[in-house]
Amino acid sequence: MLYLIGLGIYDELDITLRALEILKDVERVYVEFYTNASNVNLKNLEKLLGKKIYVLDRHDLEEHPEENILRDSMKKKTALLVPGDPMVATTHMDIILRARKLGIKTKVIHASSIYSAVAETGLQIYKFGKTTSIPFPDKSYFPTSPYDVLRENLKNDLHTLFLLDIKPEENRFMSVNDAIEILLRIEETKKENIFTKEILCVGVARLGNNSVIRFGRVMDLVNYNFGKPPHVLIAPGKLHFMEEEMLKAFTHP
Amino acid sequence: MLYLIGLGIYDELDITLRALEILKDVERVYVEFYTNASNVNLKNLEKLLGKKIYVLDRHDLEEHPEENILRDSMKKKTALLVPGDPMVATTHMDIILRARKLGIKTKVIHASSIYSAVAETGLQIYKFGKTTSIPFPDKSYFPTSPYDVLRENLKNDLHTLFLLDIKPEENRFMSVNDAIEILLRIEETKKENIFTKEILCVGVARLGNNSVIRFGRVMDLVNYNFGKPPHVLIAPGKLHFMEEEMLKAFTHP
Repeated sequence: MLYLIGLGIYDELDITLRALEILKDVERVYVEFYTNASNVNLKNLEKLLGKKIYVLDRHDLEEHPEENILRDSMKKKTALLVPGDPMVATTHMDIILRARKLGIKTKVIHASSIYSAVAETGLQIYKFGKTTSIPFPDKSYFPTSPYDVLRENLKNDLHTLFLLDIKPEENRFMSVNDAIEILLRIEETKKENIFTKEILCVGVARLGNNSVIRFGRVMDLVNYNFGKPPHVLIAPGKLHFMEEEMLKAFTHP
Repeated sequence: MLYLIGLGIYDELDITLRALEILKDVERVYVEFYTNASNVNLKNLEKLLGKKIYVLDRHDLEEHPEENILRDSMKKKTALLVPGDPMVATTHMDIILRARKLGIKTKVIHASSIYSAVAETGLQIYKFGKTTSIPFPDKSYFPTSPYDVLRENLKNDLHTLFLLDIKPEENRFMSVNDAIEILLRIEETKKENIFTKEILCVGVARLGNNSVIRFGRVMDLVNYNFGKPPHVLIAPGKLHFMEEEMLKAFTHP
């Protein structure tokens, strides 16, 4: 039996009672921290569960799950803890598919996620269009897809949520500032006047606890220090007056 | 001080440790059950918190919050418990705006929500377009907006999540079957071949616990008994092969 259990949006306190109930009977507990930036403290989590927790990295989980989590799930109750809501990451869909092929039963325990928490900004959740991710660019890889998604959403007056890349193995977590700079670089190339220094954006850090939300022009947010990860960036579409009023409280400068 | 606290997607077990921590010190606890269908049992929740919980209806919360929740928040630590993630409903944005005007501090505690949990179907969350709601139609009100949103999402190969209306005061909760019939009626009027009996859909009930997910043609799902609420309906856009493989497990008939 394999449980995929969400840890929720911020730290170990975002776990649910349902998860704790199930974890009492679980014989082997794994966690991964590479699909989602998290402030979970492993020692605190182990204390909370009263169990040893084994950390899996991308290599373990994506290349050799049959040597850890799938092997154990065949013989005993096994859990994989995942920051946020577990099924949001494609990796965990893949684990479920592999488990099913081996005849392992699976169950998902949901938790809070940026996808709904983002409404804390005051932006209405049903007015978000397709979500997109901004990867760290390098010499050979500089995708413009986030810009393209923004264009399509704006056409339909929808908000765009940009999820920001993380490379925990290098201790790199993309900031709102990095994200803005990347989008401005794409604007320089494409020149479609979609993401300019003058447009209004919302920068968000650590939603769920000690959150910082700032609403302002790109040129004013680009140098603002949002502090520790995780961060997300939002480019709003057409604003409803209630959204404007909610965002006012976060105006910068 | 006013806390808006999410109860999560299914029942009282979906509350987080963060919420329980905060609720220890809260002097007055309210709950509402009209923005979101929920299987929370009030007695169990009171036992869990060791506190009396006062239920607010739409009238209390939207017309006279100054007679209950806002009045209390000015004097003491007060919480409003909300099924799902609290800021998803516009009502709660309005409460926060009113609180701010009165100088009341507010804090949001997030919980699991249909907006990310829907990924349990196997559909990738970043491929969802704008979400839409299907209201109960009546003689004078039969909006076609859900159909229009579906059309726009399909143009962009995106999935559409339909949230279904509830009228708890009349014990009416829209089922997947109702939703399908409403969309078929709109199709009959508009005749754009967007929501036909032949298209593939996903019907979902009680995500989070005892969930039922069924993937099939509209004509095959329309008579399927999904059981108790809450229900949602999804009309997928273009499917990725991994999504198809995930959905296979839920195929009906």
